[in-house]
Amino acid sequence: MIKVDLQYSGLEKNDLNETKVKDIHKMIINKTGKGNDFLGWLEWPKTFDKNEYEKMKKAASSLRDKIDVLVVVGIGGSYLGIRAADEMIRGINNFDKIKIVYAGHTMSSTYVAQLSKYLKNKKFGICVISKSGTTTEPGLAFRTLEQQLNEQVGIEKSKDLIVAITDKSKGALKTLADNKGYLTFVIPDNIGGRFSVLTPVGIFPLLVAGVNTDKIFTGAIKAMNNLVQDNLTNEAYKYAAARNALYNKGYKAEALVSYELQMQYINEWWKQLFGESEGKDGKGLYPTSMIFSTDLHSLGQWVQQGTRGVLFESVIKIVEPVNDMKITKDKDDLDGLNYLVGKTFHEINSTAIEGVIDAHVNSGKMPNIILEFEKMDEEMLGYLVYFFELAVAMSGYLLEVNPFDQPGVEIYKYNMFKLLGKPGVK
Amino acid sequence: MIKVDLQYSGLEKNDLNETKVKDIHKMIINKTGKGNDFLGWLEWPKTFDKNEYEKMKKAASSLRDKIDVLVVVGIGGSYLGIRAADEMIRGINNFDKIKIVYAGHTMSSTYVAQLSKYLKNKKFGICVISKSGTTTEPGLAFRTLEQQLNEQVGIEKSKDLIVAITDKSKGALKTLADNKGYLTFVIPDNIGGRFSVLTPVGIFPLLVAGVNTDKIFTGAIKAMNNLVQDNLTNEAYKYAAARNALYNKGYKAEALVSYELQMQYINEWWKQLFGESEGKDGKGLYPTSMIFSTDLHSLGQWVQQGTRGVLFESVIKIVEPVNDMKITKDKDDLDGLNYLVGKTFHEINSTAIEGVIDAHVNSGKMPNIILEFEKMDEEMLGYLVYFFELAVAMSGYLLEVNPFDQPGVEIYKYNMFKLLGKPGVK
Repeated sequence: MIKVDLQYSGLEKNDLNETKVKDIHKMIINKTGKGNDFLGWLEWPKTFDKNEYEKMKKAASSLRDKIDVLVVVGIGGSYLGIRAADEMIRGINNFDKIKIVYAGHTMSSTYVAQLSKYLKNKKFGICVISKSGTTTEPGLAFRTLEQQLNEQVGIEKSKDLIVAITDKSKGALKTLADNKGYLTFVIPDNIGGRFSVLTPVGIFPLLVAGVNTDKIFTGAIKAMNNLVQDNLTNEAYKYAAARNALYNKGYKAEALVSYELQMQYINEWWKQLFGESEGKDGKGLYPTSMIFSTDLHSLGQWVQQGTRGVLFESVIKIVEPVNDMKITKDKDDLDGLNYLVGKTFHEINSTAIEGVIDAHVNSGKMPNIILEFEKMDEEMLGYLVYFFELAVAMSGYLLEVNPFDQPGVEIYKYNMFKLLGKPGVK
Repeated sequence: MIKVDLQYSGLEKNDLNETKVKDIHKMIINKTGKGNDFLGWLEWPKTFDKNEYEKMKKAASSLRDKIDVLVVVGIGGSYLGIRAADEMIRGINNFDKIKIVYAGHTMSSTYVAQLSKYLKNKKFGICVISKSGTTTEPGLAFRTLEQQLNEQVGIEKSKDLIVAITDKSKGALKTLADNKGYLTFVIPDNIGGRFSVLTPVGIFPLLVAGVNTDKIFTGAIKAMNNLVQDNLTNEAYKYAAARNALYNKGYKAEALVSYELQMQYINEWWKQLFGESEGKDGKGLYPTSMIFSTDLHSLGQWVQQGTRGVLFESVIKIVEPVNDMKITKDKDDLDGLNYLVGKTFHEINSTAIEGVIDAHVNSGKMPNIILEFEKMDEEMLGYLVYFFELAVAMSGYLLEVNPFDQPGVEIYKYNMFKLLGKPGVK
């Protein structure tokens, strides 16, 4: 469950446009708004192909036995959701057999060369994710790493170590995988990249990582069942309406704040979801993020006393910790911290949240939206993915843009292709 | 060397206040401005204590022989600069004997518990960094990890595995280290946390990591010698004056952009340096960051077509790669990338930069400041640290704030201490 608390937002009931929310709700469920051919994620947690899911489980289990490192090759929606889910659920220093590393999300030669060297003595597999198979970054990385794997284990064995997540029937990657005998799973046509975490894009790598994906779907279905109201009692809509109201009051940027390091890529995933869905037609909040208390010691000064009226915070409070530790007594107490003995790290972290909200809201006049999460586990991941997807649909329509396209991403690509002399580009 | 190119900034010569720059230059070198007791970093690359440096080299070399993992315990300026330098120089998947991990920069119980578990079978040492020794986050983490080390190797052996970087004579950490027989190195009184990378704070951990710190000082001295003009031919001042001019035109946020994943923590270090120095008295640009081309596939849409007049980009172009790789030919060319055969990753990445600048500036009307860096190596690190430190002094004074204090950071701490019942806090 996610609860949205607006008591520190500075907003009043009248600031939230409930009438418009009700109209848009109809537009979403009846699929009559802009971009409505990309609403597949709306029923996905209940309607996804159970046969394919069973096949994925088998394939992942078999791959898991053969490797120590899984290289996920993808960019944007084929990268951020996987990393977000993996780090939130398994943590940063996890002890699972499988380590996930990423490629195809950069053209840095230094990164690719170091990764290639790192993989030299490793038993590794590749999960390459691309709808088309012709995107430059993942295309170049896959070409390089596929060749390395062939050299390390031979072409025959490689076939069992490479899995492609791609279009069901067309595109370069589908053709390539079929020709070479790689297993493939399907990216649905009606779900855009940034909405694809719960499709094979996210689920297959997470299965290889040993994550309990059944529970992810349990959480997503809970969200589907909870978030059905057409009004502001729907917590996803409440969040969307609140951020839209702050935008209308002149705020230009929203920082998603968390107090857990392993939520960093949830922040990054959220940035794509909201930035790419809303940043068009000269509109939209700039999505940014911070991890506290870490960043209180860097950006905290600006947040407390810098320029006002530009940024607001949306703060994730996590009720229950995954692990906890008590503060132990020190006989000399030179650091003066014995007054905390008996308390746990999580209790202190939670107290910090209260103190910071008070400081930022009351002294700093910085609006805060509070998002209360239960725990960092599989179920919560499923829930939050659905929650934010529904919220961004509402939020994008409130802004009167198409939340499901990304026309601006093509402009730099066109320039780059022209400079690189890509055939057919003039 | 760093070259600043303003041709894509939309600024004209008149927008930059050279007269004020000249006045402030005098104020900086004569140390007559606000916060002038924290200008120690200005001559530090030439004046630092060479005896202490030799002692650090010996101690680091001895520690390096005894451990596989160095835990750096610190927050804010005692964390970000070290991580920034280490990742920029050694890369993300480095192959050095020593792995650096971080603690004391978070109160997340899950992170601390996982780190503690990770360290259980490891030969590890601790470098704890704190001026006072009573800051909550590093204090709690050090207490926990010191005890773990004592349990793993015994109190006697621990003495050789723990080094404290702290005040030269006073404070809890200095007393604790002296009592327990830990080696200490000094945080100078006249250099604030966010300006401390080139002091023992940064240098000792980097020595343990096997980094050539002599070259870091070579780079810093080069910057000292290059950046002496009192006018806009001084590239650090040119950068400061340009960002100040954009701020005065109404821009509220600056994104530092890089095309190398291993520059991520340079971005984070820069955020503290500029955010904490400038975000006060209701003023200052909100510092944010992106890594391209990764984030072109998430935030790129917003940057290209979202809200205008709020954000500008400062783009780091790195001329020479550390490693490079050629694109290899594929006989089937199913991915259509054979047109790139013979080119290197770095050539393609550099072409992307040109295409993106064109797209963002000309189609997107997004001002770009271009910062040209030579290479990601030790010398460049020293140079860029000094460059940005000098730039932020100029930039803060142009904004008419004290660039060297951080009064707002205390407010949440006071609230938290009150809630936690810290003795003496009412």
